Amino acid sequence: MISWPVFSPISVCMPFPCEDIMSYEIIAIGDELLLGSTLNTTSHTIARKLFEAGWICRRITTVGDDTTDIKDVLLQAIERTDFIILTGGLGPTTDDITSEAAAHAMNLPLTINGDVLNTLHAHNGFSQRIKEKLASMPFGSVPLKPEGDASGYLLIHGDTPLFFLPGVPGQAVALLQEKVIPWLQNHLPAQAVYYRVMRTFGLPETEINRLVSAASIPADITIGYYPVFPEVLISMLYKRQKNESADAGSGGHGIEDALSFWQRLVSLLDRHVICEGEETLEAVVGNLLLQKGATVATAESCTGGLIASRITSIAGSSQWFERGVITYSNQAKMDILKVRQETLEQFGAVSEQTAIQMAKGLRRLAKTDYALAVTGIAGPTGGSPEKPIGTVYIALATPQQTSCQRFLFSRSENNHRPLTRTSIQQLTAETALDWLRISLQYGAHIYSSRYTG
Amino acid sequence: MISWPVFSPISVCMPFPCEDIMSYEIIAIGDELLLGSTLNTTSHTIARKLFEAGWICRRITTVGDDTTDIKDVLLQAIERTDFIILTGGLGPTTDDITSEAAAHAMNLPLTINGDVLNTLHAHNGFSQRIKEKLASMPFGSVPLKPEGDASGYLLIHGDTPLFFLPGVPGQAVALLQEKVIPWLQNHLPAQAVYYRVMRTFGLPETEINRLVSAASIPADITIGYYPVFPEVLISMLYKRQKNESADAGSGGHGIEDALSFWQRLVSLLDRHVICEGEETLEAVVGNLLLQKGATVATAESCTGGLIASRITSIAGSSQWFERGVITYSNQAKMDILKVRQETLEQFGAVSEQTAIQMAKGLRRLAKTDYALAVTGIAGPTGGSPEKPIGTVYIALATPQQTSCQRFLFSRSENNHRPLTRTSIQQLTAETALDWLRISLQYGAHIYSSRYTG
Repeated sequence: MISWPVFSPISVCMPFPCEDIMSYEIIAIGDELLLGSTLNTTSHTIARKLFEAGWICRRITTVGDDTTDIKDVLLQAIERTDFIILTGGLGPTTDDITSEAAAHAMNLPLTINGDVLNTLHAHNGFSQRIKEKLASMPFGSVPLKPEGDASGYLLIHGDTPLFFLPGVPGQAVALLQEKVIPWLQNHLPAQAVYYRVMRTFGLPETEINRLVSAASIPADITIGYYPVFPEVLISMLYKRQKNESADAGSGGHGIEDALSFWQRLVSLLDRHVICEGEETLEAVVGNLLLQKGATVATAESCTGGLIASRITSIAGSSQWFERGVITYSNQAKMDILKVRQETLEQFGAVSEQTAIQMAKGLRRLAKTDYALAVTGIAGPTGGSPEKPIGTVYIALATPQQTSCQRFLFSRSENNHRPLTRTSIQQLTAETALDWLRISLQYGAHIYSSRYTG
Repeated sequence: MISWPVFSPISVCMPFPCEDIMSYEIIAIGDELLLGSTLNTTSHTIARKLFEAGWICRRITTVGDDTTDIKDVLLQAIERTDFIILTGGLGPTTDDITSEAAAHAMNLPLTINGDVLNTLHAHNGFSQRIKEKLASMPFGSVPLKPEGDASGYLLIHGDTPLFFLPGVPGQAVALLQEKVIPWLQNHLPAQAVYYRVMRTFGLPETEINRLVSAASIPADITIGYYPVFPEVLISMLYKRQKNESADAGSGGHGIEDALSFWQRLVSLLDRHVICEGEETLEAVVGNLLLQKGATVATAESCTGGLIASRITSIAGSSQWFERGVITYSNQAKMDILKVRQETLEQFGAVSEQTAIQMAKGLRRLAKTDYALAVTGIAGPTGGSPEKPIGTVYIALATPQQTSCQRFLFSRSENNHRPLTRTSIQQLTAETALDWLRISLQYGAHIYSSRYTG
């Protein structure tokens, strides 16, 4: 691509390690997927979970609820691939025709599975006809979870396993994890796979890429970069080689080498690593506060409640979050936080002086250990030559001291276009929470950021 | 599907009107799409935009950056369909091989387009080799926007137009709207299409379905339901029939009939219609406040800033939003909002009395026309038999009076499972904003909701 906008994920940096790896395809079925009304998150999640488990998707085909199209794509996929995941079209309505189309494609009769039918008898809402439709599958199929809400089934055609899953993301992914992946691990050539992920903030993706490449990535390790604005997730996938022994070390790169490379990356990226794993920043901050028995309060202007909303999205947050205020007007800053009128008049609402008074006032009032205050210009109007759109002051009051830093969230580093209001709000909230994390984790008062300005 | 979880969109209720309609396919190219690292929003948006313009997608195929796979799927698609949109793999890196693979598939030489190359000369960051790669396309291709960042191109193979677009969503959709759709409208049989959408809240999707069906949908109109929790979007697509005259009315259902059916739906769904179009609830509320020159303040407990954050996501919101407070602790409720200690002791923080004092206190302090206050139990802990998880009190103070209602956001109406913390927070924020909308739009003090309880 010429340039990736700031919101867009970027591709994995290494080519696939393709040899000796089973390939599979996903067939997603449903008119709503073709009309653009439903985003196909089910296929995406299946591909990701199977990738993490060591299987790489060769093709995803989306077709409508159309017998001919389903039959056509299924028969072609069987020719190409080692196993197939089908999702969608297993429901009760007349447009759900996946089982029928599959039976037709493989010249098998459609049969009613007794176990699934028994489970469905508990559903008083369904007529007998609908229950029978839901329990129908091509002859020879085995339900994946006959006792479940949506059982799904496995049909082995020749030597190609076909997994039929619902289209609903939650149901499909639950069956995938509970039934499909264990089945594959038992029945297809074992693939020793080692997958790790970490969440980072503060380094541009290009800079991470440069650092990681300079650390000389061992062969057979795939490093992926997945920017999820404003963070970058980094993943590592390692697959044991064909003739590598289970206890590794015997030539080639063993799992220990992969692990030590990963640890090297974690050290290299240092404070930019929010966590290993995919825990959110607000969850990490919550845990740190909980561990210390500390509390926090927030005073927001340009973020309008986004910081508090992220903190309180975590269950149990009342143990560390005391209060938040969104002092949008000057009057509110004076009323609630005791910011002085002279300060607002002399330096303006968007100033270091105001931010510091907000944080200090809030910490005193809320009697919390920490107080975060932000004031800035999210745009699209309100900028000036001295304080352009994207200018934000963040102040952090801790038991030791109150610090304030000026940030400038102005342009996307990918395409150098001005950031939107939403992006400025997101970057501000992320930076404030990340500063709190750094302060809690390292006791640091100063937060180093490429946006300092 | 057996049952749709509350977050899942549902399919369009009517079968496609397939006759006489051109069909097309999308081919999405990129390893990152198969690894599950990048969600394929580009194909989804293309399908939606083209659907709105009257073209229905027959198939979406996602393949990796692999010459054989690209060639294979492209040649098969040409056999099946009227036109093809390809996205991805046009960038500068070595894994971007779409143009090369397409040229190879169609036995055409790869040529460098002079106009695109000239535009690229402005990019100092690219080497000559990369500029030439970016300007390469199969012989006979015409750049869609040679002066743009990412030009894309059109190649007509036999009588099948092939549109090559970047994979980056913003770039692809811009080219689609500026170049591809106008081209299709000029060159493929005209399709008079009438597309409308409305955003609703408060009625379950099954109930909307029942109401709409009872209104007897005219033939040739497709109604779609797209739940985007906690709202339901409803769309209508009407296509003029082959032998229907341009001024309609001459037999069959004309565009006027479609429009009048749509108006019937809007009346039928009444106050549940947030807006015609896709404007967000917070934007609608902001506009209503602006029109009236009125202001609002928010006091939140269980939503933790989500309501304020939605209100302030709208540019210009400082004109109608004065302040917000997130009074998580009892002390904060007393300090900032002057809720009486006896009230908290006697009735609890989650009570009608507390909610009313929060709203009244806030409106007095903030000197706004409206004040919204919410207090409730978002879970996953903190419920009791009298006040189970999901119990929420919302109070609205207006210039006329202060009202409070109790809501119970307990179970998904699709699968009857308990709602998550996040869903309860989202439903609470939506209900509070919707009540404010109803109050502003209809002057109503009482808000009718199926969650009242």
